[in-house]
Amino acid sequence: MVPMHKAQDPHFVERVRASFARQPAMALIGASMPVVEAGYTEIHLPHKPDITQQHGYIHGGVVGMIADSAAGYAAMTVVPANASVLTVEYKLNLLAPAEGELLIAEGSVVRYGRTLIVTRAEVLAVNHGRKTACALMQQTIIAVHGRKEQPGQRSAS
Amino acid sequence: MVPMHKAQDPHFVERVRASFARQPAMALIGASMPVVEAGYTEIHLPHKPDITQQHGYIHGGVVGMIADSAAGYAAMTVVPANASVLTVEYKLNLLAPAEGELLIAEGSVVRYGRTLIVTRAEVLAVNHGRKTACALMQQTIIAVHGRKEQPGQRSAS
Amino acid sequence: MVPMHKAQDPHFVERVRASFARQPAMALIGASMPVVEAGYTEIHLPHKPDITQQHGYIHGGVVGMIADSAAGYAAMTVVPANASVLTVEYKLNLLAPAEGELLIAEGSVVRYGRTLIVTRAEVLAVNHGRKTACALMQQTIIAVHGRKEQPGQRSAS
Amino acid sequence: MVPMHKAQDPHFVERVRASFARQPAMALIGASMPVVEAGYTEIHLPHKPDITQQHGYIHGGVVGMIADSAAGYAAMTVVPANASVLTVEYKLNLLAPAEGELLIAEGSVVRYGRTLIVTRAEVLAVNHGRKTACALMQQTIIAVHGRKEQPGQRSAS
Repeated sequence: MVPMHKAQDPHFVERVRASFARQPAMALIGASMPVVEAGYTEIHLPHKPDITQQHGYIHGGVVGMIADSAAGYAAMTVVPANASVLTVEYKLNLLAPAEGELLIAEGSVVRYGRTLIVTRAEVLAVNHGRKTACALMQQTIIAVHGRKEQPGQRSAS
Repeated sequence: MVPMHKAQDPHFVERVRASFARQPAMALIGASMPVVEAGYTEIHLPHKPDITQQHGYIHGGVVGMIADSAAGYAAMTVVPANASVLTVEYKLNLLAPAEGELLIAEGSVVRYGRTLIVTRAEVLAVNHGRKTACALMQQTIIAVHGRKEQPGQRSAS
Repeated sequence: MVPMHKAQDPHFVERVRASFARQPAMALIGASMPVVEAGYTEIHLPHKPDITQQHGYIHGGVVGMIADSAAGYAAMTVVPANASVLTVEYKLNLLAPAEGELLIAEGSVVRYGRTLIVTRAEVLAVNHGRKTACALMQQTIIAVHGRKEQPGQRSAS
Repeated sequence: MVPMHKAQDPHFVERVRASFARQPAMALIGASMPVVEAGYTEIHLPHKPDITQQHGYIHGGVVGMIADSAAGYAAMTVVPANASVLTVEYKLNLLAPAEGELLIAEGSVVRYGRTLIVTRAEVLAVNHGRKTACALMQQTIIAVHGRKEQPGQRSAS
């Protein structure tokens, strides 16, 4: 059901990457955003001990963080250059432990309205090179028009 | 509607605290759990620059992390000593930016069944000494009986 | 945490009641709305065979219907007279079978912003005169300003 | 991400259809279930005045009812013959008014575990022969083993 999306801002890739780069919390956990397309982003997160819970898997809360951000940034790719985006709410199912060497959060836009954007994210755990879905999220984003995100301004989550 | 809860394990405080202490991700963000009661916990998180987003507020994903954990540990207070708990899913509304010097996530048990436990959490931002609600969560937890959490075992999220 | 709410429209009770009366689906299931206060409504639904599932309890989908509507109308009590409200999304936990002679859905406003309103609802089953919680919902509502609801216009869900 | 599913009960179609037929609430709104496959069902609902809200669209609560049921029955297709299923919770986004002559709720299994089943549903409105997505749902189902659904027993929602 996910339709193709068009970006209204030809420079959406730079805009989204710059926003991601201004988030110290993403640097703290070691997340990167190697893929940014119209209506779609990926956040990658390599396993490291300080983001785990007691079994050694990546913490469920950290899984939620990258799901929320990947989908929020997917929404940001489709808004005009002078708009910013905020997470209204999300619902996350944890499907399996986040076991493996790398997590990939795939965020995508489901439906884009002027004010509200519905997105989803799937988080895949790559374990010895094999992908398994470990979380599934459905999210609502609000676009705030005429309030371009600046260094020092709030955006997706 | 939240009824009073009784702990089945007289040593639930120690058990829950020990589990929390085994989560490197909670140490990474600087979270502590000063309050543990039957059916209720609080996670406190002081503001620090490396857990923020671009406006300087605590990152929405980090708000979700402590909401998920506070409610998951509230569930853990009511299960027997030989059971562990896992987050099935949660839904979080972000009500306001997490602005201030301290976040307090209050997790509580709404309904306790043998297999499933429904919980909620509210996250309060303390800004210049004044509390404001910044997030509201509703969560489902599963109790896994006969599988006591060990050092090196998985628990709430 | 639910603060007191003030209605901006002194005639909110009549406005909300008139909207409810224009919903054939509420009549079909036999629902009424005996309580309308600022930030709060109650929908009552007596048991009748044609709204049940196979065990004879009221159908879970019908429980969701009255939870959604009670909370949506709670939101409608706090918007200005020239605004209408729409359900953006909701999340519902079914806590117990809807067993008994009457269901009461209590909808209340948690946080009111100009555009978005966060609400919750609890559905109580009255069984031989005794109340038990059977569902818990958290919901997001959008207020559409300058578009007063008319006979023949869309509102809460 | 939706994998192919196998039914454990060779008679799942008859079992699921018989359960649906025992739900008076589905008859009340005029819903049918013409498609039942392993891991997938469709509920169809023609427009009729008594299931509408004040704009003449099908009521949002009724949209939720068929989304919940389609996904719950998708879960029922994959459990063993001696198991029944219950809705734990669901989260529904309303994407657009349910405008048109027919609604189709497509329910599918996302992940199947022994105890918990994660499903999703999409509701499409057919308006002058053209399909538009009007709702998106993510749901958690619990399988209760050794408790076969009987005439007079509770099942999906």
